[in-house]
Amino acid sequence: MSNKAVSYAGPGKVEVIDTPYPEFELKDGPGVNPANVGRKVHHGVILRTIATNICGSDQHMVRGRTTAPEGLVLGHEITGEVVEVGRDVEFIKVGDIVSVPFNIACGRCRNCKEGQTGICLNVNPDRPGSAYGYVDMGGWVGGQAEYVLVPYADWNLLKFPDRDQAMEKIMDLTMLSDIFPTGFHGAVTSGVTVGSTVYVAGAGPVGLAAAMGAQLLGAAVVIVGDLNEDRLAQARSFGCETINVAHGSVEDQLEQILGVPEVDCGIDAVGFEAHGHGGDAGKEAPATVLNSLMDITRAGGAVGIPGLYVTGDPGAVDEAAKKGALSLSFGTGWAKSLSFATGQCPVMKYHRQLMMAILNDKAPIAKAVNAGAISLDEAPRGYAEFDAGAAKKFVLDPHGLISRN
Amino acid sequence: MSNKAVSYAGPGKVEVIDTPYPEFELKDGPGVNPANVGRKVHHGVILRTIATNICGSDQHMVRGRTTAPEGLVLGHEITGEVVEVGRDVEFIKVGDIVSVPFNIACGRCRNCKEGQTGICLNVNPDRPGSAYGYVDMGGWVGGQAEYVLVPYADWNLLKFPDRDQAMEKIMDLTMLSDIFPTGFHGAVTSGVTVGSTVYVAGAGPVGLAAAMGAQLLGAAVVIVGDLNEDRLAQARSFGCETINVAHGSVEDQLEQILGVPEVDCGIDAVGFEAHGHGGDAGKEAPATVLNSLMDITRAGGAVGIPGLYVTGDPGAVDEAAKKGALSLSFGTGWAKSLSFATGQCPVMKYHRQLMMAILNDKAPIAKAVNAGAISLDEAPRGYAEFDAGAAKKFVLDPHGLISRN
Amino acid sequence: MSNKAVSYAGPGKVEVIDTPYPEFELKDGPGVNPANVGRKVHHGVILRTIATNICGSDQHMVRGRTTAPEGLVLGHEITGEVVEVGRDVEFIKVGDIVSVPFNIACGRCRNCKEGQTGICLNVNPDRPGSAYGYVDMGGWVGGQAEYVLVPYADWNLLKFPDRDQAMEKIMDLTMLSDIFPTGFHGAVTSGVTVGSTVYVAGAGPVGLAAAMGAQLLGAAVVIVGDLNEDRLAQARSFGCETINVAHGSVEDQLEQILGVPEVDCGIDAVGFEAHGHGGDAGKEAPATVLNSLMDITRAGGAVGIPGLYVTGDPGAVDEAAKKGALSLSFGTGWAKSLSFATGQCPVMKYHRQLMMAILNDKAPIAKAVNAGAISLDEAPRGYAEFDAGAAKKFVLDPHGLISRN
Amino acid sequence: MSNKAVSYAGPGKVEVIDTPYPEFELKDGPGVNPANVGRKVHHGVILRTIATNICGSDQHMVRGRTTAPEGLVLGHEITGEVVEVGRDVEFIKVGDIVSVPFNIACGRCRNCKEGQTGICLNVNPDRPGSAYGYVDMGGWVGGQAEYVLVPYADWNLLKFPDRDQAMEKIMDLTMLSDIFPTGFHGAVTSGVTVGSTVYVAGAGPVGLAAAMGAQLLGAAVVIVGDLNEDRLAQARSFGCETINVAHGSVEDQLEQILGVPEVDCGIDAVGFEAHGHGGDAGKEAPATVLNSLMDITRAGGAVGIPGLYVTGDPGAVDEAAKKGALSLSFGTGWAKSLSFATGQCPVMKYHRQLMMAILNDKAPIAKAVNAGAISLDEAPRGYAEFDAGAAKKFVLDPHGLISRN
Repeated sequence: MSNKAVSYAGPGKVEVIDTPYPEFELKDGPGVNPANVGRKVHHGVILRTIATNICGSDQHMVRGRTTAPEGLVLGHEITGEVVEVGRDVEFIKVGDIVSVPFNIACGRCRNCKEGQTGICLNVNPDRPGSAYGYVDMGGWVGGQAEYVLVPYADWNLLKFPDRDQAMEKIMDLTMLSDIFPTGFHGAVTSGVTVGSTVYVAGAGPVGLAAAMGAQLLGAAVVIVGDLNEDRLAQARSFGCETINVAHGSVEDQLEQILGVPEVDCGIDAVGFEAHGHGGDAGKEAPATVLNSLMDITRAGGAVGIPGLYVTGDPGAVDEAAKKGALSLSFGTGWAKSLSFATGQCPVMKYHRQLMMAILNDKAPIAKAVNAGAISLDEAPRGYAEFDAGAAKKFVLDPHGLISRN
Repeated sequence: MSNKAVSYAGPGKVEVIDTPYPEFELKDGPGVNPANVGRKVHHGVILRTIATNICGSDQHMVRGRTTAPEGLVLGHEITGEVVEVGRDVEFIKVGDIVSVPFNIACGRCRNCKEGQTGICLNVNPDRPGSAYGYVDMGGWVGGQAEYVLVPYADWNLLKFPDRDQAMEKIMDLTMLSDIFPTGFHGAVTSGVTVGSTVYVAGAGPVGLAAAMGAQLLGAAVVIVGDLNEDRLAQARSFGCETINVAHGSVEDQLEQILGVPEVDCGIDAVGFEAHGHGGDAGKEAPATVLNSLMDITRAGGAVGIPGLYVTGDPGAVDEAAKKGALSLSFGTGWAKSLSFATGQCPVMKYHRQLMMAILNDKAPIAKAVNAGAISLDEAPRGYAEFDAGAAKKFVLDPHGLISRN
Repeated sequence: MSNKAVSYAGPGKVEVIDTPYPEFELKDGPGVNPANVGRKVHHGVILRTIATNICGSDQHMVRGRTTAPEGLVLGHEITGEVVEVGRDVEFIKVGDIVSVPFNIACGRCRNCKEGQTGICLNVNPDRPGSAYGYVDMGGWVGGQAEYVLVPYADWNLLKFPDRDQAMEKIMDLTMLSDIFPTGFHGAVTSGVTVGSTVYVAGAGPVGLAAAMGAQLLGAAVVIVGDLNEDRLAQARSFGCETINVAHGSVEDQLEQILGVPEVDCGIDAVGFEAHGHGGDAGKEAPATVLNSLMDITRAGGAVGIPGLYVTGDPGAVDEAAKKGALSLSFGTGWAKSLSFATGQCPVMKYHRQLMMAILNDKAPIAKAVNAGAISLDEAPRGYAEFDAGAAKKFVLDPHGLISRN
Repeated sequence: MSNKAVSYAGPGKVEVIDTPYPEFELKDGPGVNPANVGRKVHHGVILRTIATNICGSDQHMVRGRTTAPEGLVLGHEITGEVVEVGRDVEFIKVGDIVSVPFNIACGRCRNCKEGQTGICLNVNPDRPGSAYGYVDMGGWVGGQAEYVLVPYADWNLLKFPDRDQAMEKIMDLTMLSDIFPTGFHGAVTSGVTVGSTVYVAGAGPVGLAAAMGAQLLGAAVVIVGDLNEDRLAQARSFGCETINVAHGSVEDQLEQILGVPEVDCGIDAVGFEAHGHGGDAGKEAPATVLNSLMDITRAGGAVGIPGLYVTGDPGAVDEAAKKGALSLSFGTGWAKSLSFATGQCPVMKYHRQLMMAILNDKAPIAKAVNAGAISLDEAPRGYAEFDAGAAKKFVLDPHGLISRN
């Protein structure tokens, strides 16, 4: 049985290739950790992929800024239908329509038991935490493919209650595998509550999801900043205020909107590939966003940091950044008693509640991020457009199950 | 200077009387605790009352179910303009438009410091906690009057940022003194978060405020139950589902709405004057609501109880209830690991954030509770209609400052 | 292979019988829920029982106050060595020394994912929550036996890091399966923190564990109340203050100790089989403890209720109590803004951290509860002495692995 | 009336000078913010200082690393007896023995109401947050003096319940004004709970207080690291493990103690004047401690940062540090999902509970930090010895009220 998949083909390139149909075992292949080769996955299921999205963090690999090997099958945002269940699976059934959290978790270790599924101790021999189709994350095969293996299925999967309802809202529900929880996690960890004023740095899909997450949490005002006008227009489409960070200081622009140059809650939805503001707009400046957030978050506030920061960045602009070191105005944050929350979102902590919001029409997330479905074969174009800054979230539809418009 | 005010005039009766203009001292009068007589209030301000609402808990006194003395000036929901400031007031200024939390708090005791302003230790010689115009609450004079004294003004008052904006939204903002925070507190303490399913027992103003509070917190579905169809219609007007508890079991009706006979979060917005459901509909049955909430709240859930329960109820239907004892199916709650939160809402914990929600058009609470302004002289009619079950929140407008329609 | 076990033999009687050696399947037998008969347990392990304790809640069954069938194998406090692992077990190995949480949990349902393992949705067909050897809890066979089957072993079991160290501290570690976490849960949910004053109602093993839990959490003063002087002496042995509730009001006695008649935190370690205080000392009075805790917990405090309350109690003193209804002075609690936490302790939430406390010599719990090991054959005597009020915790040692003194 | 006080007299020098006796007004003087000159303090009290301690953060000024003006009266750790009360003070009385939180707070602003007294909005015209006797903190006169003015006395002061008991434990109680809460805050914000393993960087008084705070919170193992053997000996004296950071990597030394090279909770009790470890031991290296804590705190853990980081440091080793910028390996923290809490400890949040711990003999903090009383005249010697690394906490005793030994 064939299994077409999107793979990394060297800096700036992805291609659609034929790969083996999954078995209940993690086989050797590009990027698979040797210690994981041959691992039995009787606790897994095989999904027919219904929707699998291109993520901003995939772009880090595709731009050649990581050590990802060629041939790595990409994709960690996966929604699918269960077509086979492993021997040890008890509660998930063939035919279930399910969302797959991008972080793979065993459901047996200390961290999983404490709800920290983003840093599971048993799935990645290198370090805590894992993901599908990602460099240095254990080697679990990516889901931008027709079929994909999901381990620890009874633990990891979120089953949608009704098949027809799920297919009807599939463009929203597909955001549950990563960006909606990730953005929401940013909002939660930045302390958003009813009545908060919130600044989200970055109007990419995660930033927009953070903005909608902040709205769901009851924020009084959500302000999104970016350099990309199309993305800012997207933010305005669902009721956010916006700031073009190239058009003057963030403080000044906040003051015009709020009457004060600060917000209760700051969210970094950009990460280490940040670019300068104002005069330096356009140049890469990895500490810019964090330093700016320390300036504009009110004393006593919190900064949520779903944006990715890496331990090493061979393609960085300077030596410090290559080693993952940032020059942070930490004293500014300290003087204001700020707190900072980092790391991969533990998707399982949030996906059920966000599913409830979607199913009850409280969270039109697909529209907010301007989601559009394309075929698997169109993936290379989707990557290229997204990399060029398209204000769009690309959803791959390997089996033509999603109506396109 | 005269000061017209609404006072309790015996069971079933309120009247508008002339009372003394406030001074910076708590004078003797009906219901004033002897230990509070003569207390200096240099930390207070005098407000010209802009809006002061009739509350369901005022009705307990007016129905003659308490030991409230005749002549007690009523009213603990107060919004006004500062016309005089006491010697020791530093931050509140003449001309400020402010919301008064119904719970009077000193801002200096352990409980105030811990945010528990509903049980301040320094304002009521009888027990922790106090309120304006309420029996056994220390004797602070009620605010259904042209003018009212507010002690510890720098601590207690919430200043609205802009005068014109405040007057424009005054019908919403007046709900910040009690029912909006009280309902919201019910929602918070019942654990409502994004995606929750919520059942609110009672569609009076507090129940409706709890429902809107649950929506602000991101609830996926909010269901309100009552016997009064007009009030239920009010709940439907802002997107709630409703249950008429006279039309069959709550479980069955929940199951029709949700597919399951239970909710994540239960809120008791009724209190001790509850009436029976189903066959017993109409008869007073003080434990009914709590027992019902234990049945329909899911295992692991929480029950928020803003509805008032009293330590003694001379007018109760049976001996146990007269002593404030309820026959609770506590084992049901225990088997489900439920938790229960009780007590007066500490308004200060929430009023600022809810003001932000109102000022930024996220919380049309006046419309939700069907608020309508009447003159102070019309107060007796307002009490009577509210007692008869009008699906309406009566706002007294002693100085004709609110446009009526 | 034989498997001696302790079973219920009718009101007031337990006996040691021969039972089948466990298999990886839940077989039919006394008290097994029909829907669980034949359930495959490939995710389970078989333990050689090292220590298994007699619990106060076992006594409810043995006293004949439940519908437990004769022949039910008792025992839900289990520590053992893994002698066989099921096909699907991945991380637990033969030879591991492990603690078994008394609440059986699947590690796959919503409640387990949220850390609420005391109300797992997948192990008991009757209701959320399960336990070994307990009536109406699904029918999982009890562990007061030589061998016992533990389902979902990778999820449920706590492995001790070192075998020799574990055997050395086995009398402390055996308390991790139930009473230490249960008492600690009472302390946590009553809000104990550094500097708190705490009252624990009940000086049985759970009450003593709650007292030690409160000490670990940093309580300034822990006061334990009971009618049994031997148990009170036990509480004093590790630094608690004590109150004999037969010797005057709890308020008065608290005032003598603390200077005030109230505490920050109240813990009910008694439950529905409470007896009256003062004049009514000795008579069963199921609401006594809860009403007393509402009186003596300070305004704004919390009441933690690890003591068991049942939905029905055929042996109760009056009709209300037979239906599980209690006459509670709920208005007293409401006026003080108290909160209440109920239910089975989710042992997994706490057992790891309490193990760390034991292994680092911070928590001599065995000494605190006066634990003593006896053989399996001596179980009937242990039950009888414990029922008679012995200030002792009986640990059964089926294989003679524990040194006795 | 005279008022001898300790003042800053230029880099490396303090001297005892005569200053005016306080009045209920903030007069002009060295370091007083112009906007605060003439501020009325009717809400204040005048204390006769019983004990006032030399703090590590005073040393930053004395070393000449700040813009503190000569003549600034030092001292923000103050315990005293009330000798005069301002006109507006209601609850604090002459004769009360009280602890003064080092952070001055108004008790009326949003931050104070939210318990964030370290960043009060109304006491320092420059920025949120204030303190006595400290540069850029508003100009409130320091308390290393015979008498001192304390504003907002009803809000700020913690009254000890009994005068004799207070004097008996005065050497412990004097630590409540700063270092005990500050260290405890570090422990709390690093997530210490029962059973935690904890690493405290820095064995100065705050580090030792953090270690004792961690013990009170129930830590299983507390490990303190420093370069100073005398201070490490002090840590061992109350049951901590220790690491000399000059003797090899922290990871290796942790592994020897714990069996793993990481801890649950990391605390930075050093701040920006950190010195290098290992090969660089001795050289100033402001980011060393934070980078080390990111290495050794387990994935999912938290880092509490009571150690001071400044917005500018004219005396720093390099340009970046002069502007307060640190080179942080932020990606390491992000990959481990760490969180970080910074800022001045809000003393009021903790001082009452820590007082309870002291009064009930749970927290021998004076002994832990090796507190010793000296006269006010001996202050210069105290500063010099402390600066030289004495493993001692110097308590000034201006009126000879403390027994010395």
